[in-house]
Amino acid sequence: MQTVIRSNAQEVIISPEHPTVIIGERINPTGKKRLAQALADKDMERVRRLALSQVADGAAVLDVNVGAAGIDEVELLPMAVRAVMEATDVPLCLDSANAEALRAGLEAYEGKALINSVNGEEASLARVLPLAQEYGAAVIGLCMDDDGIPSTIEGRVAVAQKIVERAASFGIPAEDVVIDCLAMSVCTDAAAGRVTLEAIRAVRETLGVNMTLGASNVSFGLPDREAINEMFIAMAMQNGMNAPIVNPTQARKGILIADLLLGLDEYAMRYVGYVRSQRK
Amino acid sequence: MQTVIRSNAQEVIISPEHPTVIIGERINPTGKKRLAQALADKDMERVRRLALSQVADGAAVLDVNVGAAGIDEVELLPMAVRAVMEATDVPLCLDSANAEALRAGLEAYEGKALINSVNGEEASLARVLPLAQEYGAAVIGLCMDDDGIPSTIEGRVAVAQKIVERAASFGIPAEDVVIDCLAMSVCTDAAAGRVTLEAIRAVRETLGVNMTLGASNVSFGLPDREAINEMFIAMAMQNGMNAPIVNPTQARKGILIADLLLGLDEYAMRYVGYVRSQRK
Repeated sequence: MQTVIRSNAQEVIISPEHPTVIIGERINPTGKKRLAQALADKDMERVRRLALSQVADGAAVLDVNVGAAGIDEVELLPMAVRAVMEATDVPLCLDSANAEALRAGLEAYEGKALINSVNGEEASLARVLPLAQEYGAAVIGLCMDDDGIPSTIEGRVAVAQKIVERAASFGIPAEDVVIDCLAMSVCTDAAAGRVTLEAIRAVRETLGVNMTLGASNVSFGLPDREAINEMFIAMAMQNGMNAPIVNPTQARKGILIADLLLGLDEYAMRYVGYVRSQRK
Repeated sequence: MQTVIRSNAQEVIISPEHPTVIIGERINPTGKKRLAQALADKDMERVRRLALSQVADGAAVLDVNVGAAGIDEVELLPMAVRAVMEATDVPLCLDSANAEALRAGLEAYEGKALINSVNGEEASLARVLPLAQEYGAAVIGLCMDDDGIPSTIEGRVAVAQKIVERAASFGIPAEDVVIDCLAMSVCTDAAAGRVTLEAIRAVRETLGVNMTLGASNVSFGLPDREAINEMFIAMAMQNGMNAPIVNPTQARKGILIADLLLGLDEYAMRYVGYVRSQRK
């Protein structure tokens, strides 16, 4: 199954037969005071720089999130989308909990976007899926619903299935739904990592859709989070997750190694090319 | 299924419900000139130091291999076994291609050893399985036979099954067979990693036996081999491999993280304890 997203100049294919697609997460003011201030000032220079640096570090898609206290996302998301489109050619993932901001971002965007995100809550399905339908966008579906994040593998898969089926009722094909099985911290619940990993495997086997993962929650509260996240992403890739949302600077090498070990890097060309580029 | 191996003071259990067992690989003169010379001189001081340092770094079992040009393994393997037993209490894995050396090592060893290794070749089965039977040892079974290393998943599983069945005919139960699905370099064959990983999953599902892995071949010819090996071991652990033969100094952290993500480290006690110990 292939998920295709596009800018006006590039097409990115997410599929089990292709190398893993890195979605760069850094255009997001959460925990970034200077970016939040720049956005509040409607200064897009920092957004442009984050776009360029992430593409240089291997991001094939850029997530754009402008949500922070005191920011009008309906005004700012399209501004940020236009700024990133000026700076780079990669397709975008429009990231907001605000449906009007998503609409404004989709209006500004030129291409087939990825929407981040819908989930299994009735209100979310009713708000976001019509937007994906109207703008012909693909959409990330989070495995949570009105009862929260299911603690079982079966519960996560059931939400994924609900989202895929509801999307179909809006005419959105399964290949345009990218599921996120959601990571929880293994610090407080030893089973948390395995539940997510097995849910990913089950979604691949039962629904066949492509998957993303915001992996970093898995290491919440633990030392050396980057090392844990890297290994978790590799394990998730082994089970079928193929478009992680990450900081490409930190995550690229691990993802290239995992692709190599999973048979997605003939003659190790991409891995060796990366290692050589880092030595210059 | 539990594989139990013992020294006269310690018992180690290899099982899917227990944390991964690290088998320390460093008592092996291959590529170690000074160790080879010390062994040729029958000087066991270096062997003792390698034993102690690996246990300090997290090895629960030590592989003992004295094979090198000009060394009489039949004389030296029992000497090395005695030296390691003097230095540490951990159970041993006796590693030789020479059946007479294995016999001499087993005679010297006090406990239930792990023999490294038998494979699916008729000559190997006929030489090694009677030793495991006679000494009540567990045995590592390599997934290769008279035709070499099978290139397919099914071929590897078939050899594993042959070894388990032949062992049973000698009265050796399946829990005393530890399968190694064998790693080949992904540098020349992009499918090599996936074949090994899927073979591990298939052996776990069909035979249920415990598994080891000499992982380092996977990165042959590539830069930063340690990073590749670490991730490959984690992926193999996810599929059921639970007693890797590694340099514990290099591999321990990755193995602890993989155990944590696979639900084998309640409250992250072992991982956090390790990180704290490294900071002292």
